[in-house]
Amino acid sequence: MSANIEAAKAALSHLDLETREAGIKAASRDFFWYSPVLKDRLDHVMADFVVRPTSEAEVIEVLKVCFAHDVPVTTRGAGTGNYGQAMPLAGGCVLHLRNMDKVREITPGRVVAEPGCLLKNVDAATREHSGQELRMFSSTWETATIGGFVAGGSGGVGSVTWGSLRDLGNIIRLRVVTMEAEPRILEFRGEELARVSHAYGTNGIITEIEMPLAPAYDWVDIFVSTEDFGAAVALAEDVANEDGILVKLASVYEAPIAHEFFQRVKPFVSENSNLVGLMIAPHSMEGFLTFLARRPEVTLIYRSDDHDWPRRPGKVFEYGWNHTTLRALKVDPSITYLQVRYGFPDHVALIEKIRASFPEGEILQHLEAMRMGGKVAFGGLTLVRFTTEERLDEIVRLHEEAGAMIFNPHRYTLEEGGRQMTDATQLNFKREADPKGLLNPGKMISWDDPEFGYDAMYAYPGLKETAE
Amino acid sequence: MSANIEAAKAALSHLDLETREAGIKAASRDFFWYSPVLKDRLDHVMADFVVRPTSEAEVIEVLKVCFAHDVPVTTRGAGTGNYGQAMPLAGGCVLHLRNMDKVREITPGRVVAEPGCLLKNVDAATREHSGQELRMFSSTWETATIGGFVAGGSGGVGSVTWGSLRDLGNIIRLRVVTMEAEPRILEFRGEELARVSHAYGTNGIITEIEMPLAPAYDWVDIFVSTEDFGAAVALAEDVANEDGILVKLASVYEAPIAHEFFQRVKPFVSENSNLVGLMIAPHSMEGFLTFLARRPEVTLIYRSDDHDWPRRPGKVFEYGWNHTTLRALKVDPSITYLQVRYGFPDHVALIEKIRASFPEGEILQHLEAMRMGGKVAFGGLTLVRFTTEERLDEIVRLHEEAGAMIFNPHRYTLEEGGRQMTDATQLNFKREADPKGLLNPGKMISWDDPEFGYDAMYAYPGLKETAE
Ligand SMILES: Cc1cc2nc3c(=O)[nH]c(=O)nc-3n(C[C@H](O)[C@H](O)[C@H](O)COP(=O)(O)OP(=O)(O)OC[C@H]3O[C@@H](n4cnc5c(N)ncnc54)[C@H](O)[C@@H]3O)c2cc1C
Ligand SMILES: Cc1cc2nc3c(=O)[nH]c(=O)nc-3n(C[C@H](O)[C@H](O)[C@H](O)COP(=O)(O)OP(=O)(O)OC[C@H]3O[C@@H](n4cnc5c(N)ncnc54)[C@H](O)[C@@H]3O)c2cc1C
Repeated sequence: MSANIEAAKAALSHLDLETREAGIKAASRDFFWYSPVLKDRLDHVMADFVVRPTSEAEVIEVLKVCFAHDVPVTTRGAGTGNYGQAMPLAGGCVLHLRNMDKVREITPGRVVAEPGCLLKNVDAATREHSGQELRMFSSTWETATIGGFVAGGSGGVGSVTWGSLRDLGNIIRLRVVTMEAEPRILEFRGEELARVSHAYGTNGIITEIEMPLAPAYDWVDIFVSTEDFGAAVALAEDVANEDGILVKLASVYEAPIAHEFFQRVKPFVSENSNLVGLMIAPHSMEGFLTFLARRPEVTLIYRSDDHDWPRRPGKVFEYGWNHTTLRALKVDPSITYLQVRYGFPDHVALIEKIRASFPEGEILQHLEAMRMGGKVAFGGLTLVRFTTEERLDEIVRLHEEAGAMIFNPHRYTLEEGGRQMTDATQLNFKREADPKGLLNPGKMISWDDPEFGYDAMYAYPGLKETAE
Repeated sequence: MSANIEAAKAALSHLDLETREAGIKAASRDFFWYSPVLKDRLDHVMADFVVRPTSEAEVIEVLKVCFAHDVPVTTRGAGTGNYGQAMPLAGGCVLHLRNMDKVREITPGRVVAEPGCLLKNVDAATREHSGQELRMFSSTWETATIGGFVAGGSGGVGSVTWGSLRDLGNIIRLRVVTMEAEPRILEFRGEELARVSHAYGTNGIITEIEMPLAPAYDWVDIFVSTEDFGAAVALAEDVANEDGILVKLASVYEAPIAHEFFQRVKPFVSENSNLVGLMIAPHSMEGFLTFLARRPEVTLIYRSDDHDWPRRPGKVFEYGWNHTTLRALKVDPSITYLQVRYGFPDHVALIEKIRASFPEGEILQHLEAMRMGGKVAFGGLTLVRFTTEERLDEIVRLHEEAGAMIFNPHRYTLEEGGRQMTDATQLNFKREADPKGLLNPGKMISWDDPEFGYDAMYAYPGLKETAE
């Protein structure tokens, strides 16, 4: 099966096609360079062309043409993923959805949007319409699309209350186009959502999304500092467990993250300050301040509704989730990170155990309080001072041996970034919806190599060809 | 200290005063008769007069006059409390607040209302204004006041998500008038709220209330049945732990409650059916139905948005909380109830242990899923087939010995209905705000008899006088 790129381009020439090298290159990369491992493997990856459909009908047209000419298709929202999710490992076509950016319908508790709509634009529309907003969003709210979030993300700001995207009810409906001679349009709800959500566009293109909404408030951004790390962890967990205090974010940053990497916060903390970043509903502020006053060991250093900082720190959520890594990387390029799950009820003990098992300064805890099965626990986006790939693998292993689950952000496949096993739902749907295996090739190991043993990093064979 | 009733009445004669015996009698009683124990003790209780102020200024006038003439004042919202909370044990004045019923201000997340506003009228105003509603309400939403709920209630519909009224953030501000020669007006927030919330009006009159709001949805009322009691408990707990499914109510009714006491439900269940009553947000219905389909052992028998029941069952929340007891009582007057707390994480085991320790049919489990410190657990409003007071006390003791906390609804004092100990915050504030002890006499043991040992039911000495 060999791609007939030129035929495909010709057939699509009436659409918004990008064929300049610089444009193609830009649309072929995402934030994969967060990972020194992926940077090493994927830096050269490049599509043959980029097409920007403006409607579902055009998406279908692109898929039909690419199917006919055996051209791989990798979908792109805004390319803010950081595992190379949106990178066309086998070249071919990048299907860029940023032009499908309409918000179609807003009702109490629901929004229907096109996939290329930026998260912030979904929220702007729902807030303006009826004081609503997305329950949760990636910290790339300013730049990322709702389609990319659903297909490539997992949760984020809001997960402390609402859990993860994968939880029942956090996606209502997805409309999906298949990669066949005659692409079909399917509507998924309920159990079927798991086929294509967080599937990196490997088995269908999402063309419409229905998401649940929560009320939009003028969230108060807060920073609290404390000398004791345990007190910071307890603060984040306990406030998230205060049933009457509405929280949208509770992030914990071990010292000296705030002092070293958060430039605007630095004047207000010391090297020994652990930091907690919070978003609290304005009508929960009285309750929150009462809660805080019971903890003399912590200090409120910033609240966005009342402060005397000469330079505002900006949105507190842009310190959290994967933004922490970004800020650290900018100051110290040797830094990378891990994604860890500290599940209830042993989460706090596990965090302490892991902290104790690394040399000073090699890893720094960055935790996000989130609900898992109704219980508040922590996701970790641990900062890691990178030395070698071997040591990084060892750090992963040490976490797993201690009992923490790792979602390895130094891998570009669904399985290795997930639970290291076949997702039968996604695989079966790919068999049905992408029989030629043209969608985002190289991202689903179980499709390429069902016998893969996970003893070393998966190396997509198609990648080499492109590299030549 | 002897009350000069006639002088007080004369001084207040320009206000809306009730002096007819039937009117006074009606305003002197609440739902105390739920309890055979309280019925026995309080049936004769009656005030000397009733006054219905229309403003805070009039409240102050009443308090001033009653203070001057040593007249006890018992505040009344709608009198739906069921521990005799609003009953004037020492006679005197009933301060009826139903005329102070204005909603004053609505903003995102907040409402400010007068205490006599019915819960349903608060919700009607906030829904109309901006699609908002109270986070939680007593199942007496149709008939009870917001002031009575804050001063006499504890939680209810919505507590499965938001916890209890006592949790930080669930009351924002209370404005309170004191019982002194010159009544003072105080504003309480934060820690100070505990002085007067759930204090039965023993230490101040609440004249304005600021409460947090949640979005108002057209909640779908649902009944699910199952032959296995454990499956019903698990269903209620698990749905409440589904972070992406927005739930407002999750009640469990052991068989044969539904068949025996829920007339409109009866045709759809058998004697062996355990029932779960739910309120689910409409935009969570897809998620909920997916959740439900994973449990073949349960049957969806009713959803208010799609059913073929010839006679609608009415609001599902009017089967839950204390309405269960009411429905049972109507069918079988020998029934009364207990209030139990089954705390996380041993709640399910504890419920089973207690079920096993009573003869068949003496108690029936009615559980309400609720959040306590961030964890879903259960409040029990156990139906009890009453035989004697001695056996009722024994049933209470057996629960406590098993490890469950009981809030005894067969007692009219704050302490006995609570944790059987002095609430120093409430007592200290009473010393300050009600120096003559005129507010709702007989309800705070620590005021009357600091040495009381809780070995038998407290008998307010002032009560006998009234009975004469
Ligand atoms: C600084 C930073 C912070 C981040 N914070 C978070 C966070 O808090 N939570 C989180 O979950 N992630 C986070 N991420 C990862 C990423 O930003 C999010 O997943 C983001 O929502 C992706 O959106 P996007 O539009 O950039 O998607 P892209 O990167 O363009 O695409 C993501 C994946 O989805 C696929 N895809 C995109 N659109 C479609 C579609 N319509 N149909 C099918 N497949 C599609 C792509 O092929 C790709 O595999 C962060 C990344 C960075 C760099
Ligand atoms: C069928 C039924 C179901 C119920 N369900 C619930 C439930 O789900 N949750 C729950 O918590 N309770 C429940 N209750 C108890 C009761 O209905 C609620 O507490 C209700 O909110 C009380 O409101 P009310 O206006 O009737 O108050 P009242 O009974 O009039 O007063 C309650 C107490 O508050 C005091 N009070 C009233 N207003 C003021 C004021 N402005 N300032 C100071 N003190 C004041 C009174 O003196 C009295 O002590 C139920 C009762 C019944 C009969």
